[in-house]
Order: sequence, then structure tokens, then C-alpha cells
Amino acid sequence: MIVQKYGGSSVANVERIKNVAARIKRRVEGGEKLIVVVSAMGKTTNELIALAGNLSSQPAPREMDMLLATGEQVSAALLSIALRELGVSAVSFNAFQLNINTFGDFNNARIADINLGKIYKEFEVRDVIVVTGFQGVNEIGDLTTLGRGGSDTSAVAIAAKAGLPCEIYSDVAGIYTCDPKIHDRARKLEYITYDEMLELSALGAKVLHSRSVEIAKKYNVELICLSSFAEEGGTKVVAKLPEWLEQPVVTGATIDTNQLKVTINYLPSNTDTLSEIFNAVARENFNVDMISVVNENGHSHLTFSVVSANPAAIRRTIEGVLKKYKDWELTLDSDVAKVSTVGVGMRSSAGVAARFFSVLQNSGVKIIATTTSEIKISVLVSKGDAGKALKALLDEFEL
Amino acid sequence: MIVQKYGGSSVANVERIKNVAARIKRRVEGGEKLIVVVSAMGKTTNELIALAGNLSSQPAPREMDMLLATGEQVSAALLSIALRELGVSAVSFNAFQLNINTFGDFNNARIADINLGKIYKEFEVRDVIVVTGFQGVNEIGDLTTLGRGGSDTSAVAIAAKAGLPCEIYSDVAGIYTCDPKIHDRARKLEYITYDEMLELSALGAKVLHSRSVEIAKKYNVELICLSSFAEEGGTKVVAKLPEWLEQPVVTGATIDTNQLKVTINYLPSNTDTLSEIFNAVARENFNVDMISVVNENGHSHLTFSVVSANPAAIRRTIEGVLKKYKDWELTLDSDVAKVSTVGVGMRSSAGVAARFFSVLQNSGVKIIATTTSEIKISVLVSKGDAGKALKALLDEFEL
Repeated sequence: MIVQKYGGSSVANVERIKNVAARIKRRVEGGEKLIVVVSAMGKTTNELIALAGNLSSQPAPREMDMLLATGEQVSAALLSIALRELGVSAVSFNAFQLNINTFGDFNNARIADINLGKIYKEFEVRDVIVVTGFQGVNEIGDLTTLGRGGSDTSAVAIAAKAGLPCEIYSDVAGIYTCDPKIHDRARKLEYITYDEMLELSALGAKVLHSRSVEIAKKYNVELICLSSFAEEGGTKVVAKLPEWLEQPVVTGATIDTNQLKVTINYLPSNTDTLSEIFNAVARENFNVDMISVVNENGHSHLTFSVVSANPAAIRRTIEGVLKKYKDWELTLDSDVAKVSTVGVGMRSSAGVAARFFSVLQNSGVKIIATTTSEIKISVLVSKGDAGKALKALLDEFEL
Repeated sequence: MIVQKYGGSSVANVERIKNVAARIKRRVEGGEKLIVVVSAMGKTTNELIALAGNLSSQPAPREMDMLLATGEQVSAALLSIALRELGVSAVSFNAFQLNINTFGDFNNARIADINLGKIYKEFEVRDVIVVTGFQGVNEIGDLTTLGRGGSDTSAVAIAAKAGLPCEIYSDVAGIYTCDPKIHDRARKLEYITYDEMLELSALGAKVLHSRSVEIAKKYNVELICLSSFAEEGGTKVVAKLPEWLEQPVVTGATIDTNQLKVTINYLPSNTDTLSEIFNAVARENFNVDMISVVNENGHSHLTFSVVSANPAAIRRTIEGVLKKYKDWELTLDSDVAKVSTVGVGMRSSAGVAARFFSVLQNSGVKIIATTTSEIKISVLVSKGDAGKALKALLDEFEL
């Protein structure tokens, strides 16, 4: 028995659904029983969001989940139809039918529990159970969704609960040292640790939903990322790299262009101002990333970056907090990108940060802000410098 | 409190959904609370059927219902979003959430019961409950659908259970003496009886799903058919026409071109042959309509019509039954149409049938087969004669 998950691009049209069905059939013929979790077809979710956007600028989250959950039900039913056409005994189930219970906010619900009883019972007469990813049901019976990419989390949660390995299929064959859609020199990793994967997911790598990796780590789920379009081996996500594997210092590098730089000069130098600003920003659900503060002659100069933010909304929030002070200057700049390197090897290798900064300096890249963790270094640079910075890092760390 | 149902054309796009939401808002402002049942948007159901058809020539009915039920969930969520945008307190529910329990076959399930508890509870805090039409859940928790047009049945069943009146909205403003999309002279009826409406629905009038009329009749539901695009009064469907109303002999006339004429000549004259044929045809779920048998010199000549049938499948079925006999001749003809008149006045008016047949004869229409009920006369004619026949009947009965 195994859990598989097919992403939206893997089931984007009739031909691709047939392809997935044929792949599953070969596994069934090999004697396996499969729980197959599917995402909505291709751009379906975006199309439904656009429809709702034409009706309301702020559609009710509860009704959005009711709407978006249909996408996965369509692809689950179609995949089951395609499987039965190939003679595979399949059946599809949605979140109600499997009691995929969630808690927390609409649009971003979290899985509380899954009742596997129905799946085990169906396996007495079926070889494949197709399950709608992305959706759940909350304690009062409303449909919920798990956030973009949430089908990964559905699949890994089922695998964790059932104690099964999990294969995640998308249109790329695994985890790469950098984005293979952008960089020719991207190299596929055979292994990556949960921790590295968490950092990469948080940095915007779209291969796996962050929360799916958190669950995989917590329950030690055997996870592998593969392509549904190729037969090549994928990337195994593991707790620890195998001993025999030469440990690279840096595993991957990413660019995130979805950043907004916020700079406030000439703040009054008392700590209250900073906490007022960050409290207000948090209340509005802005996701603050890199923060730098410099003090000078009784003033503070603050720079931070915000992910995927509306500049006008940020401006409104900050001006609201600071209106009682004077002489401060607010500057917003979206012409910035975050360049990051991730690797568990950083923990044990001295001098990685020194190499990181000196290679950027030698390449003439101007660093605006910096943030680091045990296994990650990120810098904020201008968009124009981002490509140069990534190339220099890929060279330096032989990615 | 009232139940409303909006058909696919009434919610076919964003503009029409906004229009429906605005209509509902006016009713809420007038102090009403509404249960609003919706169909899938426009051609959604046909598109989903086409998708499945590309994957399998005979998609599993259980999976088709899983697939098709999504259409109503999309329109219910979107209407709820549009209503909230207008400040109306609305919420949408699907068949799982309301325990719309069904029995019987997939694709054509029948409603066993509906739990109104959730609706009544929500009405304590909401003005509008939007409900997915067409879908239900069977005793083992599979999604089911009620057959094409089944949203009418969902709405009337809810109205029957709740003891509420029911308004059915479509793109025509009521029930007409003949199809207003085809005939200029169509006249809208102010009243029609349940029995007449049942005959018209069975004859292919698309305004109301037959089973919805059966339920309305059984539970005496106050039913009215209206247009969502106009403000004019619609047609009330009632148990008995009001006393003050001048009773027309004939209420409406229809043409159904979806007929296949099956003729078998030189059958051996024993009744077994006929029952063998009709048993086989019934087993294959063909819907037999008009039947004529003539005996001659130890042979039988049989003609009957079948609704919406695949000629090759009919041929296969009949040849299978008759292969043990010889000398019979099978002819199929799809160049036929059924022309019908319906009216409760026929019960009490003598000579209606005589007028019906003589006007057709005088118009030179050749009658292939005939079937009658207390309140209906139908004839099968060639497609070429159908328009002429209808016009002659409309003239004769002043429709």
C-alpha cells in the first residue's frame, strides 16, 4: 500500500488524466493498492477565484471554500472514471465521505484527523481509492480548504495516519539546487532533509507545501518527489542524509521576487515605536521577513521586507501608527528580490557565511538586508542584482 | 418564508448571478426569508458530461454523480458570495450538509427525506439559505443526482417538507399554450393544473421536471413558474382551476421530435413475441411510448415509438430477441415527431378527439400512431407534417 499525490499540472486535461491512470494501473498490476490524492485540474482554482472576484472584492472565506472544494471533486471523479475505463477497480471520495476533519481558519484550515475506516473497508473490494486533496470539513460541517498547495498536506497527513510512504507527483522530477524552469544548471538532488525542504518551501519553492513537510518530519513519513511526465527517479525527503552520501555544504539556492522593501527613516529612538509598527503589521496579517535597525543621533532607521503585500495597504497601516510622530520618512520599494542558500552542511561547515558575503561583494552585488538561520542565509538585493547574485553563489558552492 | 429555484440559464454568468442576488435582496428587504435552490451555471453539466465522455464511453454512474454534483456547489457558493456582497446575510449548503437523503439509481435518484433542522437553525441568524439543487446522498454516503432538471424536484421537495410555497425561475415567464421559443402565437397561461403540467412535462416541456410536479401534486405545494429576467406574473400550478376561470378545452400543444419509430412486420402471431420484445426493450431501459399492433393472416404487425433512443442499440436488442424466428422485417425511422394537446377540459368536453382527428385529416396530416389519456391526445406524424399539424390544432382549439 502506498499514498500518491498528483498535482494540478499532472491532471490538467483529459490526456494527462489518462496518463496518470495508466501509471496507476501499472502499479496495481504490480500488486499494490493505492490511495491517490488529487489536486484540481490545471488552472481551475485560479478560474474559480476569478469568478468570485467578479462578484465581490472580498468574498466570504466560508463561501470561497465551498466554491474551491469543487475543483478537487471534479478531478477525483474524472480520475476514477479513467481508471475504471482501464479496468482498475477505483472509487473517489471527498472530504465529507472520509471525515477529513479540520480546525482553524477557512482558506487555511489545518487537518485535525482523518477516518481511515472507510478507506480500509473499500480496499477489501477496490485497488485504488481516489481522494480529493486540499479540502476538509470543520467541526460544524462547513467545507474548508487547506491553503494553496494544500493537497500535498492532505496526502502526507493520510500517509502519516496510515503509516505509509508517500509519492508526490508534479511536473518537475524532484527538488533541484535551483529552479529548473529558470536556470539551466539546476541539478536534481537525490536526497534532501526535512529541515532543508522546510527552508526551501518557506522561501517559495513550489514543489511541496510547507505544512506537508512539517507533518512528514513530525511523523517521519517516507516522502519522495517525482514527475508524472517522466520515469526518472525523484528526490527523497528524509530526516538525515545517508552516511555514504558526500555532504554538500549548500543544497539549494532560490530567488524570491515577491518582496516589498519598507524603509522608515528618522523614527524617534524609543523601542515602543518599533513594537507599535510590528504589532500593527501583524494585525493586518502581513508576513514580515528581514528586519534591520540602525540607530543614529537619537533616531532609528528601520528596514524590513514584507512578502506578497499590497504597497497601498502597508502604507496605510504604517502611516496610521506613526501619525502621532513627526519628521519620519516612509519609502516603499518593490524592486527587490531575496536570494537564499539552504543546506544542512552549513551547520558543520565554518566560514560559509564569510564565503557567501565575499562572493557577493566580489560580484558587485549590493546587500540591502540579511537574515540567517542554522541552515540558511538570505539577502535582500535589487531585482537587477538578483540573477548575478544567484550565479555567483551557484559557482561558489558548486550547485 | 418561501422556497425559490433558479435554473441554469438564470445563473449562467456573473451578471445573471448578480441579477438574481438583487431580486432576492428586494424580497429580503420586504421582510421575507428565502430558501433558494440553484442549478449549475448554464452549460456546466453538459461540459462535465463531455469531459467524462472523453475518458470513457460508459463512465460509472456513481462517479458521474460525484462529478456532476460539483456544478450546483459552484453556483450555490457564487450566489451566496453575490448576496453577501449586497449585504444580505446568506449561506450555502450542499446535500451532505442538509442530509438530502436519496434512494434508487445513480443519475436518477429519488429523495427519501430532507433534514430541515439545519435550515431552521440557520434562519435564526440568516435571511437566505442557498441550497445546491439536483444532488443528494444515498444510504451509504455516496453522492447521487436526481436526473436532468432535478433541481426543480429538490426545490419542490423542500417546499413540501417545510409546507412552503415554491417559485420556479427560468428564462421563460411561465407555462405557454405551446413553446414560446418556437411559436409566435404562444400564449402564457395564468393557471394550469398539476395533471396538465404532468402531461406536458412528460411530453418534453422543459419548464418543470416531472417528478417535481408529482411531489407538488401529492403534497399540494403552491407552485408558480416565473422568469428571472422579467417582472411579469407567471403561471400558477394548482390542483383545480379557479371556478371563475373560463375553462379551456385544451390548455397546451407540444411537439416532441426526439422519437424513433420502430416497425416490425410479419411477426409470428403469438402474444409471447410481443412480451419478449417489450421485456427486452425495458431491460435495456428504453422508454417506449406509443404502441400499435395489427393482426393479419396469422401474422402481427407492430409499431411503437421510443424516446431518445440510439437506433443501433434498439436494432441490436430486437434482433437478439427475434433471431429464433424468421421472415420478420424490422424498420427504424427517426423522421417522426409526436404532436400532442393537453387539457383538463377534455375530460368533460365530448367530441374533442373527433375534432382533433378531423382537423388533422383536413390538413392532410398522415397519422402514424396514436395514444390518449383522459386529458391528452398524442399522434405520431412525419417530421415534415409536424408543424402543419400543430398549427391546425392551435387554430382549432384557439390556443
